[in-house]
Amino acid sequence: MRTNIDDGNTMTQPTAAQAAESRRSVRQYEPAPIPEADLRELLRLAGRAPSAFNAQPWRFVVVQDDTLRAELSAAAYGQQQIVRAPATIVMYSDMASALDRMPESMHPDMPQDKRDAGVASFRATFAGQSDDQREAWGNAQSNIALGYLLLLAETLGYATSPMLGFESEKVKAVLGLPAHVRIPALVSIGYAAEEGFRPHRLPAESLVEFR
Amino acid sequence: MRTNIDDGNTMTQPTAAQAAESRRSVRQYEPAPIPEADLRELLRLAGRAPSAFNAQPWRFVVVQDDTLRAELSAAAYGQQQIVRAPATIVMYSDMASALDRMPESMHPDMPQDKRDAGVASFRATFAGQSDDQREAWGNAQSNIALGYLLLLAETLGYATSPMLGFESEKVKAVLGLPAHVRIPALVSIGYAAEEGFRPHRLPAESLVEFR
Repeated sequence: MRTNIDDGNTMTQPTAAQAAESRRSVRQYEPAPIPEADLRELLRLAGRAPSAFNAQPWRFVVVQDDTLRAELSAAAYGQQQIVRAPATIVMYSDMASALDRMPESMHPDMPQDKRDAGVASFRATFAGQSDDQREAWGNAQSNIALGYLLLLAETLGYATSPMLGFESEKVKAVLGLPAHVRIPALVSIGYAAEEGFRPHRLPAESLVEFR
Repeated sequence: MRTNIDDGNTMTQPTAAQAAESRRSVRQYEPAPIPEADLRELLRLAGRAPSAFNAQPWRFVVVQDDTLRAELSAAAYGQQQIVRAPATIVMYSDMASALDRMPESMHPDMPQDKRDAGVASFRATFAGQSDDQREAWGNAQSNIALGYLLLLAETLGYATSPMLGFESEKVKAVLGLPAHVRIPALVSIGYAAEEGFRPHRLPAESLVEFR
Protein backbone atom coordinates (compact mmCIF):
# COMPACT_ATOMS: atom_id res chain seq x y z
CA MET A 1 0.00 0.00 0.00
CA ARG A 2 1.40 3.39 -0.91
CA THR A 3 2.32 5.57 2.02
CA ASN A 4 2.62 9.36 1.91
CA ILE A 5 4.90 9.56 4.92
CA ASP A 6 8.49 8.80 4.11
CA ASP A 7 11.19 10.43 6.19
CA GLY A 8 13.67 10.09 3.36
CA ASN A 9 11.53 12.06 0.96
CA THR A 10 10.45 15.20 2.77
CA MET A 11 11.61 17.59 0.04
CA THR A 12 8.44 16.93 -1.93
CA GLN A 13 6.20 17.99 0.95
CA PRO A 14 4.67 21.44 0.85
CA THR A 15 5.84 23.70 3.66
CA ALA A 16 3.46 24.36 6.54
CA ALA A 17 2.87 27.84 5.10
CA GLN A 18 2.01 26.40 1.68
CA ALA A 19 -0.30 23.85 3.33
CA ALA A 20 -2.07 26.61 5.30
CA GLU A 21 -2.70 28.33 1.96
CA SER A 22 -3.82 25.27 0.01
CA ARG A 23 -5.86 23.32 2.56
CA ARG A 24 -9.59 23.19 2.03
CA SER A 25 -12.37 20.86 3.15
CA VAL A 26 -12.91 17.90 0.85
CA ARG A 27 -16.14 15.90 0.82
CA GLN A 28 -15.44 13.48 -2.05
CA TYR A 29 -12.78 10.83 -1.45
CA GLU A 30 -11.11 8.00 -3.31
CA PRO A 31 -12.18 4.69 -1.74
CA ALA A 32 -8.52 3.66 -1.20
CA PRO A 33 -7.70 3.16 2.49
CA ILE A 34 -4.93 5.16 4.19
CA PRO A 35 -2.08 3.02 5.49
CA GLU A 36 -2.55 2.53 9.23
CA ALA A 37 1.10 3.52 9.75
CA ASP A 38 0.37 6.94 8.25
CA LEU A 39 -2.71 7.44 10.43
CA ARG A 40 -0.72 6.46 13.53
CA GLU A 41 2.11 8.83 12.60
CA LEU A 42 -0.30 11.69 11.85
CA LEU A 43 -2.02 11.30 15.22
CA ARG A 44 1.29 10.95 17.04
CA LEU A 45 2.39 14.24 15.47
CA ALA A 46 -0.95 15.92 16.24
CA GLY A 47 -0.41 14.86 19.84
CA ARG A 48 2.83 16.86 19.90
CA ALA A 49 0.63 19.96 20.16
CA PRO A 50 1.12 21.88 23.39
CA SER A 51 -1.65 22.15 25.98
CA ALA A 52 -2.02 24.02 29.24
CA PHE A 53 -0.45 22.00 32.09
CA ASN A 54 0.67 19.62 29.29
CA ALA A 55 -2.67 17.97 30.04
CA GLN A 56 -3.14 16.47 26.56
CA PRO A 57 -6.86 15.83 27.10
CA TRP A 58 -7.35 14.72 23.48
CA ARG A 59 -8.15 11.14 22.50
CA PHE A 60 -8.73 9.70 19.02
CA VAL A 61 -10.83 6.88 17.62
CA VAL A 62 -10.03 6.11 13.99
CA VAL A 63 -13.12 4.60 12.41
CA GLN A 64 -12.52 2.56 9.24
CA ASP A 65 -15.15 -0.18 9.62
CA ASP A 66 -17.93 0.17 7.03
CA THR A 67 -20.79 -0.42 9.45
CA LEU A 68 -19.46 1.99 12.03
CA ARG A 69 -18.87 4.66 9.40
CA ALA A 70 -22.48 4.32 8.25
CA GLU A 71 -23.63 4.64 11.88
CA LEU A 72 -21.39 7.66 12.41
CA SER A 73 -22.78 9.28 9.29
CA ALA A 74 -26.31 8.74 10.62
CA ALA A 75 -25.23 10.39 13.90
CA ALA A 76 -23.92 13.35 11.85
CA TYR A 77 -27.14 14.23 10.04
CA GLY A 78 -26.24 11.89 7.19
CA GLN A 79 -23.06 13.70 6.14
CA GLN A 80 -21.77 11.63 3.24
CA GLN A 81 -18.05 12.36 3.56
CA ILE A 82 -18.03 10.00 6.55
CA VAL A 83 -19.15 7.16 4.29
CA ARG A 84 -17.01 8.21 1.33
CA ALA A 85 -13.72 8.73 3.16
CA PRO A 86 -11.80 5.58 4.10
CA ALA A 87 -11.40 6.81 7.68
CA THR A 88 -13.07 9.26 10.04
CA ILE A 89 -11.23 10.32 13.17
CA VAL A 90 -13.47 10.93 16.17
CA MET A 91 -11.61 13.30 18.46
CA TYR A 92 -12.77 13.57 22.02
CA SER A 93 -11.58 15.16 25.24
CA ASP A 94 -11.42 13.07 28.38
CA MET A 95 -10.57 15.15 31.42
CA ALA A 96 -11.16 12.27 33.82
CA SER A 97 -8.34 10.48 32.03
CA ALA A 98 -6.18 13.62 31.83
CA LEU A 99 -6.57 14.21 35.57
CA ASP A 100 -5.78 10.59 36.29
CA ARG A 101 -2.71 10.57 34.07
CA MET A 102 -1.27 13.93 35.13
CA PRO A 103 1.70 12.28 36.94
CA GLU A 104 2.70 10.79 33.56
CA SER A 105 2.18 14.13 31.82
CA MET A 106 4.53 16.02 34.14
CA HIS A 107 7.96 16.53 32.61
CA PRO A 108 10.43 13.81 33.67
CA ASP A 109 13.29 16.36 33.76
CA MET A 110 11.60 18.25 36.60
CA PRO A 111 12.49 17.40 40.19
CA GLN A 112 9.95 15.12 41.88
CA ASP A 113 8.72 17.78 44.32
CA LYS A 114 7.92 20.13 41.45
CA ARG A 115 6.18 17.34 39.57
CA ASP A 116 4.07 16.55 42.63
CA ALA A 117 3.21 20.23 43.00
CA GLY A 118 2.23 20.41 39.33
CA VAL A 119 -0.09 17.43 39.66
CA ALA A 120 -1.67 18.90 42.80
CA SER A 121 -2.12 22.30 41.14
CA PHE A 122 -3.76 20.80 38.05
CA ARG A 123 -6.11 18.67 40.11
CA ALA A 124 -6.97 21.57 42.43
CA THR A 125 -7.89 23.71 39.39
CA PHE A 126 -10.59 21.23 38.39
CA ALA A 127 -11.55 19.86 41.80
CA GLY A 128 -14.66 21.98 42.26
CA GLN A 129 -15.85 21.65 38.68
CA SER A 130 -18.61 19.60 37.11
CA ASP A 131 -17.85 17.17 34.29
CA ASP A 132 -19.35 19.72 31.89
CA GLN A 133 -17.05 22.49 33.05
CA ARG A 134 -14.00 20.27 32.90
CA GLU A 135 -14.76 18.96 29.45
CA ALA A 136 -15.50 22.44 28.10
CA TRP A 137 -11.89 23.19 28.98
CA GLY A 138 -10.59 19.88 27.63
CA ASN A 139 -12.63 20.30 24.47
CA ALA A 140 -11.12 23.75 23.84
CA GLN A 141 -7.58 22.50 24.47
CA SER A 142 -8.17 19.59 22.10
CA ASN A 143 -8.73 22.07 19.28
CA ILE A 144 -5.04 23.03 19.46
CA ALA A 145 -4.26 19.44 18.45
CA LEU A 146 -7.01 19.64 15.82
CA GLY A 147 -5.19 22.60 14.25
CA TYR A 148 -2.00 20.54 14.20
CA LEU A 149 -3.80 17.53 12.74
CA LEU A 150 -5.43 19.43 9.85
CA LEU A 151 -2.27 21.29 8.87
CA LEU A 152 -0.07 18.18 9.17
CA ALA A 153 -2.48 16.05 7.13
CA GLU A 154 -2.30 18.58 4.30
CA THR A 155 1.51 18.58 4.25
CA LEU A 156 1.44 14.78 4.24
CA GLY A 157 -0.84 14.65 1.19
CA TYR A 158 -4.13 13.78 2.88
CA ALA A 159 -7.38 15.67 2.44
CA THR A 160 -9.61 16.29 5.45
CA SER A 161 -13.10 17.39 6.33
CA PRO A 162 -13.56 18.54 9.95
CA MET A 163 -17.17 18.48 11.16
CA LEU A 164 -19.01 19.99 14.10
CA GLY A 165 -22.43 18.98 12.83
CA PHE A 166 -23.27 15.79 14.71
CA GLU A 167 -25.28 14.57 17.68
CA SER A 168 -22.71 13.94 20.39
CA GLU A 169 -24.78 11.46 22.34
CA LYS A 170 -25.35 9.37 19.23
CA VAL A 171 -21.66 9.40 18.32
CA LYS A 172 -20.79 8.30 21.85
CA ALA A 173 -23.37 5.52 21.63
CA VAL A 174 -21.97 4.28 18.28
CA LEU A 175 -18.46 4.02 19.74
CA GLY A 176 -19.32 3.22 23.35
CA LEU A 177 -17.49 6.31 24.64
CA PRO A 178 -17.90 7.37 28.29
CA ALA A 179 -20.79 9.74 29.04
CA HIS A 180 -18.58 12.55 30.38
CA VAL A 181 -16.39 13.06 27.29
CA ARG A 182 -16.80 15.91 24.77
CA ILE A 183 -16.28 15.67 21.02
CA PRO A 184 -14.65 18.75 19.49
CA ALA A 185 -14.78 17.38 15.95
CA LEU A 186 -15.11 14.48 13.58
CA VAL A 187 -12.47 14.54 10.84
CA SER A 188 -12.91 12.53 7.66
CA ILE A 189 -9.59 11.86 5.98
CA GLY A 190 -8.41 10.24 2.77
CA TYR A 191 -7.24 10.87 -0.78
CA ALA A 192 -9.13 13.77 -2.35
CA ALA A 193 -11.46 13.01 -5.26
CA GLU A 194 -12.53 16.62 -5.74
CA GLU A 195 -10.82 19.96 -5.58
CA GLY A 196 -13.18 21.45 -3.02
CA PHE A 197 -14.07 25.13 -2.62
CA ARG A 198 -11.08 27.47 -2.67
CA PRO A 199 -10.52 28.75 0.87
CA HIS A 200 -12.18 32.05 1.70
CA ARG A 201 -11.23 34.09 4.75
CA LEU A 202 -11.86 37.52 6.22
CA PRO A 203 -9.08 39.99 5.28
CA ALA A 204 -6.23 39.29 7.72
CA GLU A 205 -5.58 42.99 8.30
CA SER A 206 -9.09 43.32 9.70
CA LEU A 207 -8.34 40.74 12.42
CA VAL A 208 -4.91 41.95 13.52
CA GLU A 209 -3.89 45.03 15.44
CA PHE A 210 -0.39 46.16 16.41
CA ARG A 211 0.26 47.95 19.69
CA MET B 1 16.08 43.77 9.61
CA ARG B 2 16.49 40.07 8.93
CA THR B 3 13.31 38.24 8.02
CA ASN B 4 12.72 34.52 8.41
CA ILE B 5 9.96 34.39 5.84
CA ASP B 6 11.27 34.31 2.32
CA ASP B 7 9.22 32.56 -0.32
CA GLY B 8 12.33 32.02 -2.44
CA ASN B 9 14.05 30.04 0.27
CA THR B 10 11.57 27.50 1.60
CA MET B 11 13.93 24.54 1.26
CA THR B 12 15.64 25.45 4.51
CA GLN B 13 12.39 25.31 6.47
CA PRO B 14 11.68 22.24 8.55
CA THR B 15 8.63 20.29 7.43
CA ALA B 16 5.46 20.59 9.50
CA ALA B 17 6.17 17.09 10.84
CA GLN B 18 9.70 18.07 11.88
CA ALA B 19 8.35 21.24 13.49
CA ALA B 20 5.75 19.24 15.44
CA GLU B 21 8.63 17.15 16.79
CA SER B 22 11.01 19.98 17.60
CA ARG B 23 8.70 22.68 18.93
CA ARG B 24 8.88 23.43 22.62
CA SER B 25 7.98 26.39 24.83
CA VAL B 26 10.75 28.95 25.13
CA ARG B 27 10.85 31.50 27.95
CA GLN B 28 14.19 33.24 27.21
CA TYR B 29 14.34 35.40 24.09
CA GLU B 30 16.85 37.54 22.22
CA PRO B 31 15.82 41.19 22.51
CA ALA B 32 15.83 41.60 18.69
CA PRO B 33 12.39 42.53 17.36
CA ILE B 34 10.62 40.37 14.78
CA PRO B 35 10.00 42.12 11.47
CA GLU B 36 6.39 43.31 11.39
CA ALA B 37 6.02 41.77 7.92
CA ASP B 38 6.79 38.33 9.40
CA LEU B 39 4.27 38.78 12.21
CA ARG B 40 1.61 39.87 9.73
CA GLU B 41 2.34 36.90 7.47
CA LEU B 42 2.32 34.46 10.39
CA LEU B 43 -1.07 35.71 11.59
CA ARG B 44 -2.48 35.74 8.07
CA LEU B 45 -1.45 32.09 7.74
CA ALA B 46 -2.83 31.21 11.20
CA GLY B 47 -6.11 32.75 10.05
CA ARG B 48 -6.24 30.21 7.21
CA ALA B 49 -7.28 27.65 9.85
CA PRO B 50 -10.76 26.25 9.29
CA SER B 51 -13.60 26.94 11.72
CA ALA B 52 -17.18 25.77 11.99
CA PHE B 53 -19.44 27.91 9.77
CA ASN B 54 -16.16 29.54 8.60
CA ALA B 55 -16.89 31.88 11.53
CA GLN B 56 -13.23 32.83 12.16
CA PRO B 57 -13.99 34.24 15.62
CA TRP B 58 -10.26 34.81 16.36
CA ARG B 59 -8.73 38.25 16.66
CA PHE B 60 -5.10 39.15 17.42
CA VAL B 61 -3.39 42.04 19.16
CA VAL B 62 0.38 42.03 18.70
CA VAL B 63 1.93 43.81 21.66
CA GLN B 64 5.45 45.15 21.14
CA ASP B 65 5.35 48.36 23.18
CA ASP B 66 7.57 48.12 26.29
CA THR B 67 5.06 49.64 28.70
CA LEU B 68 2.20 47.47 27.46
CA ARG B 69 4.34 44.34 27.67
CA ALA B 70 5.19 45.16 31.29
CA GLU B 71 1.48 45.66 32.03
CA LEU B 72 0.59 42.41 30.27
CA SER B 73 3.21 40.58 32.29
CA ALA B 74 1.69 42.00 35.48
CA ALA B 75 -1.73 40.74 34.30
CA ALA B 76 -0.15 37.29 33.78
CA TYR B 77 1.16 36.74 37.28
CA GLY B 78 4.47 38.37 36.37
CA GLN B 79 5.45 35.83 33.72
CA GLN B 80 8.78 37.10 32.45
CA GLN B 81 8.67 35.75 28.89
CA ILE B 82 6.19 38.53 28.10
CA VAL B 83 8.83 41.12 29.00
CA ARG B 84 11.72 39.19 27.46
CA ALA B 85 10.14 38.38 24.09
CA PRO B 86 9.98 41.22 21.57
CA ALA B 87 6.29 40.55 20.95
CA THR B 88 3.37 38.90 22.70
CA ILE B 89 0.28 38.04 20.69
CA VAL B 90 -2.98 38.38 22.61
CA MET B 91 -5.49 36.11 20.91
CA TYR B 92 -9.12 36.68 21.65
CA SER B 93 -12.46 35.47 20.35
CA ASP B 94 -15.13 37.99 19.45
CA MET B 95 -18.41 36.33 18.60
CA ALA B 96 -20.28 39.64 18.39
CA SER B 97 -17.93 40.55 15.55
CA ALA B 98 -18.12 37.06 14.00
CA LEU B 99 -21.94 37.20 14.01
CA ASP B 100 -21.88 40.68 12.55
CA ARG B 101 -19.42 39.75 9.80
CA MET B 102 -20.95 36.40 8.84
CA PRO B 103 -22.16 37.75 5.44
CA GLU B 104 -18.47 38.43 4.63
CA SER B 105 -17.46 34.99 5.91
CA MET B 106 -19.85 33.11 3.64
CA HIS B 107 -18.15 31.73 0.55
CA PRO B 108 -18.44 34.09 -2.44
CA ASP B 109 -18.73 31.10 -4.83
CA MET B 110 -22.03 30.06 -3.21
CA PRO B 111 -25.31 31.31 -4.67
CA GLN B 112 -26.75 34.28 -2.78
CA ASP B 113 -29.75 32.36 -1.42
CA LYS B 114 -27.45 29.73 0.11
CA ARG B 115 -25.25 32.45 1.59
CA ASP B 116 -28.29 34.12 3.13
CA ALA B 117 -29.45 30.79 4.54
CA GLY B 118 -25.97 30.18 6.00
CA VAL B 119 -25.94 33.55 7.72
CA ALA B 120 -29.43 32.95 9.12
CA SER B 121 -28.49 29.46 10.33
CA PHE B 122 -25.34 30.70 12.07
CA ARG B 123 -27.17 33.56 13.76
CA ALA B 124 -30.05 31.30 14.80
CA THR B 125 -27.58 28.90 16.44
CA PHE B 126 -26.37 31.63 18.79
CA ALA B 127 -29.53 33.72 19.06
CA GLY B 128 -30.66 32.34 22.40
CA GLN B 129 -27.22 32.24 23.95
CA SER B 130 -25.56 34.50 26.49
CA ASP B 131 -22.26 36.24 25.70
CA ASP B 132 -20.54 33.64 27.90
CA GLN B 133 -21.99 30.72 25.96
CA ARG B 134 -21.15 32.27 22.62
CA GLU B 135 -17.60 33.12 23.58
CA ALA B 136 -17.00 29.66 25.05
CA TRP B 137 -17.67 28.39 21.54
CA GLY B 138 -15.60 31.12 19.89
CA ASN B 139 -12.76 30.57 22.33
CA ALA B 140 -12.67 26.84 21.52
CA GLN B 141 -12.74 27.48 17.77
CA SER B 142 -9.91 29.99 18.15
CA ASN B 143 -7.68 27.23 19.46
CA ILE B 144 -7.70 25.64 15.98
CA ALA B 145 -5.96 28.80 14.75
CA LEU B 146 -3.69 28.67 17.80
CA GLY B 147 -2.53 25.20 16.71
CA TYR B 148 -1.81 26.58 13.25
CA LEU B 149 0.01 29.59 14.70
CA LEU B 150 2.33 27.59 16.95
CA LEU B 151 3.24 25.02 14.30
CA LEU B 152 3.72 27.66 11.59
CA ALA B 153 5.91 29.84 13.85
CA GLU B 154 8.20 26.87 14.44
CA THR B 155 8.62 26.14 10.73
CA LEU B 156 9.35 29.85 10.15
CA GLY B 157 12.13 29.89 12.75
CA TYR B 158 10.34 31.64 15.60
CA ALA B 159 10.11 30.35 19.16
CA THR B 160 6.85 30.66 21.05
CA SER B 161 5.47 30.40 24.56
CA PRO B 162 1.68 29.99 24.75
CA MET B 163 0.17 30.92 28.11
CA LEU B 164 -3.17 30.32 29.81
CA GLY B 165 -2.03 31.73 33.15
CA PHE B 166 -3.35 35.30 33.19
CA GLU B 167 -6.21 37.35 34.59
CA SER B 168 -8.50 37.93 31.63
CA GLU B 169 -10.15 41.04 32.99
CA LYS B 170 -6.77 42.65 33.58
CA VAL B 171 -5.54 41.77 30.08
CA LYS B 172 -8.71 43.26 28.62
CA ALA B 173 -8.20 46.42 30.70
CA VAL B 174 -4.57 46.77 29.53
CA LEU B 175 -5.62 46.62 25.88
CA GLY B 176 -9.08 48.17 26.13
CA LEU B 177 -10.75 45.04 24.72
CA PRO B 178 -14.57 44.71 24.85
CA ALA B 179 -16.01 43.09 27.98
CA HIS B 180 -17.64 40.16 26.14
CA VAL B 181 -14.50 38.74 24.44
CA ARG B 182 -12.62 35.63 25.63
CA ILE B 183 -8.86 35.15 25.55
CA PRO B 184 -7.80 31.60 24.67
CA ALA B 185 -4.09 32.34 25.00
CA LEU B 186 -1.26 34.82 25.13
CA VAL B 187 1.65 33.80 22.90
CA SER B 188 5.10 35.29 23.38
CA ILE B 189 7.18 35.05 20.22
CA GLY B 190 10.73 35.85 19.21
CA TYR B 191 14.18 34.44 18.61
CA ALA B 192 15.00 31.72 21.14
CA ALA B 193 17.78 32.41 23.64
CA GLU B 194 17.47 29.03 25.35
CA GLU B 195 16.84 25.51 24.23
CA GLY B 196 13.83 24.93 26.47
CA PHE B 197 12.67 21.62 27.91
CA ARG B 198 12.56 18.78 25.38
CA PRO B 199 8.91 18.03 24.61
CA HIS B 200 7.33 15.29 26.69
CA ARG B 201 4.05 13.63 25.72
CA LEU B 202 1.92 10.68 26.74
CA PRO B 203 2.63 7.63 24.54
CA ALA B 204 0.65 8.16 21.35
CA GLU B 205 -0.57 4.56 21.26
CA SER B 206 -2.34 5.13 24.59
CA LEU B 207 -4.43 7.95 23.07
CA VAL B 208 -5.42 6.31 19.79
CA GLU B 209 -7.80 3.47 19.08
CA PHE B 210 -8.62 1.86 15.73
CA ARG B 211 -12.11 0.56 14.97
